[in-house]
Amino acid sequence: CMCTQDKVLQFLNKMADESGIKDLTDPALAEFLSDSDALKEIRDLFHYPKAGTLPDADPSLVDPESDSIYLCGNSLGLMPKATGEVMKDHLDKWAKMGVFGHMSGEVPWAHCDEYCLEGVGRLVGAKKEEVSVCNSLTVNIHVLLTSFYKPTETRHKILLESKAFPSDHYAIESQIRLKGRTVQDSMVCLEPREGEETLRTEDILDYIEKNGDEIAIVFFSGIQYYTGQLFDMRAITEAGHRKGCFVGFDLAHAFANVPLHLHWWDVDFACWCSYKYGCTGAGSIGGLFVHERFLNDQRERMLGWWSHKMSSRFVMDNVLDLDEGAAGYRISNPPIHTVAAMLGSLKVFDQVSLENLRSRSCYLTGYLEYLVKTLFGENSEQRTTKLSISIITPEEFHQRGCQLSLKFSSPIDIIYPELVKRGCAVDKRYPNVIRVAPVHLYNNYVDIRRFISVLQEVAHIVESE
Amino acid sequence: CMCTQDKVLQFLNKMADESGIKDLTDPALAEFLSDSDALKEIRDLFHYPKAGTLPDADPSLVDPESDSIYLCGNSLGLMPKATGEVMKDHLDKWAKMGVFGHMSGEVPWAHCDEYCLEGVGRLVGAKKEEVSVCNSLTVNIHVLLTSFYKPTETRHKILLESKAFPSDHYAIESQIRLKGRTVQDSMVCLEPREGEETLRTEDILDYIEKNGDEIAIVFFSGIQYYTGQLFDMRAITEAGHRKGCFVGFDLAHAFANVPLHLHWWDVDFACWCSYKYGCTGAGSIGGLFVHERFLNDQRERMLGWWSHKMSSRFVMDNVLDLDEGAAGYRISNPPIHTVAAMLGSLKVFDQVSLENLRSRSCYLTGYLEYLVKTLFGENSEQRTTKLSISIITPEEFHQRGCQLSLKFSSPIDIIYPELVKRGCAVDKRYPNVIRVAPVHLYNNYVDIRRFISVLQEVAHIVESE
Ligand SMILES: Cc1ncc(COP(=O)(O)O)c(C=O)c1O
Ligand SMILES: Cc1ncc(COP(=O)(O)O)c(C=O)c1O
Repeated sequence: CMCTQDKVLQFLNKMADESGIKDLTDPALAEFLSDSDALKEIRDLFHYPKAGTLPDADPSLVDPESDSIYLCGNSLGLMPKATGEVMKDHLDKWAKMGVFGHMSGEVPWAHCDEYCLEGVGRLVGAKKEEVSVCNSLTVNIHVLLTSFYKPTETRHKILLESKAFPSDHYAIESQIRLKGRTVQDSMVCLEPREGEETLRTEDILDYIEKNGDEIAIVFFSGIQYYTGQLFDMRAITEAGHRKGCFVGFDLAHAFANVPLHLHWWDVDFACWCSYKYGCTGAGSIGGLFVHERFLNDQRERMLGWWSHKMSSRFVMDNVLDLDEGAAGYRISNPPIHTVAAMLGSLKVFDQVSLENLRSRSCYLTGYLEYLVKTLFGENSEQRTTKLSISIITPEEFHQRGCQLSLKFSSPIDIIYPELVKRGCAVDKRYPNVIRVAPVHLYNNYVDIRRFISVLQEVAHIVESE
Repeated sequence: CMCTQDKVLQFLNKMADESGIKDLTDPALAEFLSDSDALKEIRDLFHYPKAGTLPDADPSLVDPESDSIYLCGNSLGLMPKATGEVMKDHLDKWAKMGVFGHMSGEVPWAHCDEYCLEGVGRLVGAKKEEVSVCNSLTVNIHVLLTSFYKPTETRHKILLESKAFPSDHYAIESQIRLKGRTVQDSMVCLEPREGEETLRTEDILDYIEKNGDEIAIVFFSGIQYYTGQLFDMRAITEAGHRKGCFVGFDLAHAFANVPLHLHWWDVDFACWCSYKYGCTGAGSIGGLFVHERFLNDQRERMLGWWSHKMSSRFVMDNVLDLDEGAAGYRISNPPIHTVAAMLGSLKVFDQVSLENLRSRSCYLTGYLEYLVKTLFGENSEQRTTKLSISIITPEEFHQRGCQLSLKFSSPIDIIYPELVKRGCAVDKRYPNVIRVAPVHLYNNYVDIRRFISVLQEVAHIVESE
């Protein structure tokens, strides 16, 4: 990503000139930016909630007919309108033909996951043979580590970031113990420098360079859930490979957020959930990637009938003919209800490339950053609240996605419910962090400006009491 | 199950008297039986396909407006009408409130799997703490064997039936190899006696008695997919425990088919899929059972954030507080689309007990058996076809569920497509077996009699050519 704060500022100034709206923090400018946005119609492909249908919005504080301020797509993405139809089509098929649906119709259920592979491959930068749509994220962490984590006496460590998402942390702990090692000896959680919130790339690479001989697996998130940091997956992979480590990534917050190039970066394996930026619904179908170099690799794995080549899968003589690549890491037959949701999402991604969305995202998130710094920066002259906010997420655009993690100068436990009452959906991390994600698919400048207004309003109210 | 062929015959004769229809093979008797059936309205709770909407039905051979002859619910159960509504409700919720759906509404998504536990517990004969709704069947086989298969030098074998479903077979093979053992030494597939198709219970118990000291896990299907044999799970569990083995079951074909009493039978663990008799849709959400004696057992397992107690799950300090019982074997957050389908199915099972359904099933399947023996039995005087059929599935009602596996005296490759053209849905196992499952929920005597008619018609046609 070649964007910078300067470029964002240039853009805002240009739009200010064009519109005649001088003050860059003016809400009217947000309206102008949204109207001028070439990708504004992508929002209409989604069910964007009204403020009035959020369970805790207060109609005396926010117009129920207005759009909610939904900046929580990093936690649960919104529903594509197409998804309802795709899911209904498959329910109708089930009602009409029962078991014949496995082999009939536009998307035979026995193959429904395969219909996702091209679209998903494009999102993660992989060939169809390198990806599978299956299971859930943490199950896939286990699928991959079961096969690729082969500790020896000298090389038995798994390196990850400190404060990883609990699921990843527990999964890795348990994989280490299941393989007869101890977390004490074999789990390394890399901490940021003293006083810093995010990891410096050079420190990650340096650690791998110095200790890589002992590391079996480097397993980082692609984007860190708490800080929003986007790791340099290419450089980490290269560093790991130089020391003979396998390198894998949990792409929960990266999938469909930022363009990925797993194949070209030479990543060994990866996995993701699809319910965040992938917009497939709560807990919906996960996915995994295994690099092409393992296409015919037959390493031990957790097998099931779906690991067997389709061509002979129904011969059922119990003699395994292992499928190639990522397909051979599948275990069970695909669940049509959740795969249908993935097909619905892919209809959206078929209409707009992740590269274009990423470009839009840089400006959206850059705008949010500008407003936060200008109106809430500790040293900003334009701050009107006692409350100040610093941004944990790295400043470099190539080190972040849609999300910014905002650190508040005081606890947010009073502020947060007031935001919710006023129609905001953001992710709280008590005591004093809120994650805000302007999602490139369906958020706009107005959402962001409204959030900032609400934040100011709430801060003023709380501070006056 | 206390039913027998004699009881079925008595019942048929009684109904013949009542109706004045003398010939027990008369299609009119089937109509009378269906009309008199106390549970006939359960069919209306389902979308029962018309012949005309099956993809390969020939409208010149079967009236498109007539009901199909759907006897394939052992492979994919039909769709409950309630399911469409439950799924739509959750899509509407998603559209309306996005991320807030996790903690709001009638069924908050973060807890949606818990709403299934009472109903599922009732179906398998277990307490809520002993069951989880999660993952898929074969993934759950791995979840359970990862924790319970702890081979030692002396006790390292897994005992299962021969010709187990490929997924189970491969899963067990891979678990054995992943734990550093060989299939050659550690996998025992128990064969039926020479010339027999099903296992004798006494032979299973005998084998365990003689070899149990070497067996780590006894892992049978509850009902065998190919033969339809219902195993004596209570006796097998007792025999296994007497020799210090763990005993578990794959209930793919038993779940929601026959009443189960996993807790009372003292079974250690079990797992199932829900898309057969559970009617949740292709590939939909699986489940697992872990006996109450393991409630506070903290044995090593594949962990994720959903293994952590709910009360502190979102503290996220990466210190595991393992949940109790089956809940602690969950890994990932539940997928609402497929859990919604389970909730839809449970609305049906809330209306009629599995005991009542089982009772109905014995008569339905007994009627099918009577017709097959009478009209296709090799030694039957009433056989009008060259083709004869024998039944692989045990005769004893307590050794079977809804399904009968029919063995044809000649290859079925010509017959089978002709059945399909005439609106039949049955499961073929080339070269000469067809599995037919009159499902207690939605099949009736007329479906069965029509199937037999079509079978006769097709056999006559094929034999005259
Ligand atoms: C006995 C048995 N095991 C496993 C499976 C399939 O397992 P999964 O749901 O994991 O694809 C089936 C499905 O037909 C089955 O009958
Ligand atoms: C980094 C990360 N890992 C894992 C998970 C959850 O995993 P699962 O989909 O297996 O519940 C999340 C979900 O929020 C996540 O952000």
